[in-house]
Amino acid sequence: MTARRYRCVCLSTMLDLKAIFGGGFARHAPQVDLLEPEEALAAPETVDFALAWKPAPDAFRPFPNLAFVSSIAAGVDNILACPSLPPGLPVLRVRDDDQARMMAGFAAWHVLWHHRGMATYIAQQRVALWRRVMEKRPAGDVRVAVLGFGHMGRVTAGVLAGLGYDVRALARRAPDPALVPDGVTIVSGPDGTARIAARADMLINLLPLTDDTRGILSGALFDRMPMGSVLIQLGRGEHLVEDDLTAALDSGRIAAASLDVFAVEPLPPEHRFWHDPRILITPHEASEPNRDALARHIAAATDRLEAGELIPTMVDRQAGY
Amino acid sequence: MTARRYRCVCLSTMLDLKAIFGGGFARHAPQVDLLEPEEALAAPETVDFALAWKPAPDAFRPFPNLAFVSSIAAGVDNILACPSLPPGLPVLRVRDDDQARMMAGFAAWHVLWHHRGMATYIAQQRVALWRRVMEKRPAGDVRVAVLGFGHMGRVTAGVLAGLGYDVRALARRAPDPALVPDGVTIVSGPDGTARIAARADMLINLLPLTDDTRGILSGALFDRMPMGSVLIQLGRGEHLVEDDLTAALDSGRIAAASLDVFAVEPLPPEHRFWHDPRILITPHEASEPNRDALARHIAAATDRLEAGELIPTMVDRQAGY
Ligand SMILES: NC(=O)c1ccc[n+]([C@@H]2O[C@H](COP(=O)([O-])OP(=O)(O)OC[C@H]3O[C@@H](n4cnc5c(N)ncnc54)[C@H](OP(=O)(O)O)[C@@H]3O)[C@@H](O)[C@H]2O)c1
Ligand SMILES: NC(=O)c1ccc[n+]([C@@H]2O[C@H](COP(=O)([O-])OP(=O)(O)OC[C@H]3O[C@@H](n4cnc5c(N)ncnc54)[C@H](OP(=O)(O)O)[C@@H]3O)[C@@H](O)[C@H]2O)c1
Repeated sequence: MTARRYRCVCLSTMLDLKAIFGGGFARHAPQVDLLEPEEALAAPETVDFALAWKPAPDAFRPFPNLAFVSSIAAGVDNILACPSLPPGLPVLRVRDDDQARMMAGFAAWHVLWHHRGMATYIAQQRVALWRRVMEKRPAGDVRVAVLGFGHMGRVTAGVLAGLGYDVRALARRAPDPALVPDGVTIVSGPDGTARIAARADMLINLLPLTDDTRGILSGALFDRMPMGSVLIQLGRGEHLVEDDLTAALDSGRIAAASLDVFAVEPLPPEHRFWHDPRILITPHEASEPNRDALARHIAAATDRLEAGELIPTMVDRQAGY
Repeated sequence: MTARRYRCVCLSTMLDLKAIFGGGFARHAPQVDLLEPEEALAAPETVDFALAWKPAPDAFRPFPNLAFVSSIAAGVDNILACPSLPPGLPVLRVRDDDQARMMAGFAAWHVLWHHRGMATYIAQQRVALWRRVMEKRPAGDVRVAVLGFGHMGRVTAGVLAGLGYDVRALARRAPDPALVPDGVTIVSGPDGTARIAARADMLINLLPLTDDTRGILSGALFDRMPMGSVLIQLGRGEHLVEDDLTAALDSGRIAAASLDVFAVEPLPPEHRFWHDPRILITPHEASEPNRDALARHIAAATDRLEAGELIPTMVDRQAGY
């Protein structure tokens, strides 16, 4: 606990960040005062940094002395999209190992759901039917593509390889081989997306949303995938061209999909996806950093700030993640 | 491929082993002739060994020169229970690493099903309801007990620890620490079962069926578990006292159960478990060795036999596994 106190403004049109995270900050970052915008506006030049999640378009404008803004989660797309975000302001994300393991478990659950035909068991139980339905294809013959080999993708790829699946992961640049789990093959380079899709019996999207990845889950990509493959969409809703998914499901190109994120959230009750039996929907809940993790990350960031050091969870604003 | 040929009799009241495994043997153990009992009975003294799964009570009687009998799977309880099994005959089991990973995936699927409330999402989708239901307890606060730290239990415990769960595993004897995955605590000793149950928010049974373990999943065990815990039963049906499970579900001691194995299989259509909403039933399909794995295991066993060496997949008949 440092002597210096910090003033942090909460900027969100969607969540009451102070209410949600106050407890975690009290425990792990007691040197930080979380402020509602109204409180902060009393002395805007004294605000040291910001927490943000879907900030209002002009949210940043009143605060001239921010040292950084941090997302409350892994994604920063909603912050980078904010028009009032000052051009040079460092943008931080949370890197929580527990969250990455949580994501890996959720992704693995969906892989097994589809591979092992778990829905069939549930249907059979309803009519007291004992029938073995095992998908006889061993895990080693199921080619799983993980799009994104970052904080989430790395652990997810490693867990799936540990379960015996044939795993490839997509990154922009080939990573340090020491970071690649046993049994995972990295695909990168300009035509990486096309190459990984061509061998994807199951495709798990864990890319960040950037100008390069918006709409990446499109008919062009699906057409490269094997017939009857599976899509597990855990990134951002804007990665998916929804009409193209419906067409791919209708043609049999994609046999089934698990979707956790949507262009419009909550997914409107009248959306056709809800009643499509080929789609399994979850309400953007694949994983989240725990509340203490955010406070610990902010405490670490203020320590670095104090020491005048670079903050390691800063994103590359140019790249968009 | 050795010059010597082997004659293997198939002993099962349940499965046509020759039809099921013939292809794998042709590929991986072409030196072995698989024989139906009728074929073998033409010259019973020339039969070298047996494959068995639920053999008839007198199945072994006609064959005086067997060098060993192998199960087609991990479990040997149905072979050891056969009255005509010659007292000194070596009994082998299959140890297939792919099968262990398959089991680990299946077990993890059920842990996530219960921990993450996946059934709620399925129910919500039916009524187009977007509601976050995340069980806020992080994986690290969910204590998972794996009963059995053998070929299946070890990989299962390791995968669950890798997903962030707080994992304990039960063995008879403390294993070589080098074999214990990171994050897994071993429990052993005479009161091990009682101690591990007391800290089991989820209990996964992967014990072999022996005189010591029959009926181990009983009211006495459930009473030691925390209120509202979960049972994932993947061992053998005879491990579970079915009436005690119903009582534990009714009292709320056990909140939910996943059952893959049953005292009577197929589970009779009139059995109350089918329509118990707290129970998820699968038809003894958690994992199986692949067909090639059995043939490769037998090929390795005949090589050892040839060399006069001990066969490493031999079970301890005294211990029963
Ligand atoms: N559904 C949920 O509950 C939930 C929860 C958490 C996160 N998410 C989503 O998951 C995303 C990923 O999270 P993360 O923490 O793993 O992100 P991250 O650590 O920033 O990793 C991003 C990965 O994607 C790769 N990548 C980026 N752009 C690419 C492109 N154009 N082509 C190929 N690869 C590209 C990167 O390649 P390099 O390695 O070469 O840089 C990196 O491997 C988040 O941005 C968020 O949208 C969703
Ligand atoms: N549902 C399915 O589809 C399916 C598939 C495969 C297997 N199974 C079942 O799973 C069982 C386990 O398979 P496996 O290959 O892992 O067996 P295994 O390699 O023989 O391991 C057995 C484990 O149980 C422990 N154990 C045995 N008796 C015990 C006792 N009385 N108290 C405490 N621990 C005890 C052993 O302890 P030590 O390490 O000290 O010896 C060992 O760790 C099989 O026998 C079979 O019944 C079911």
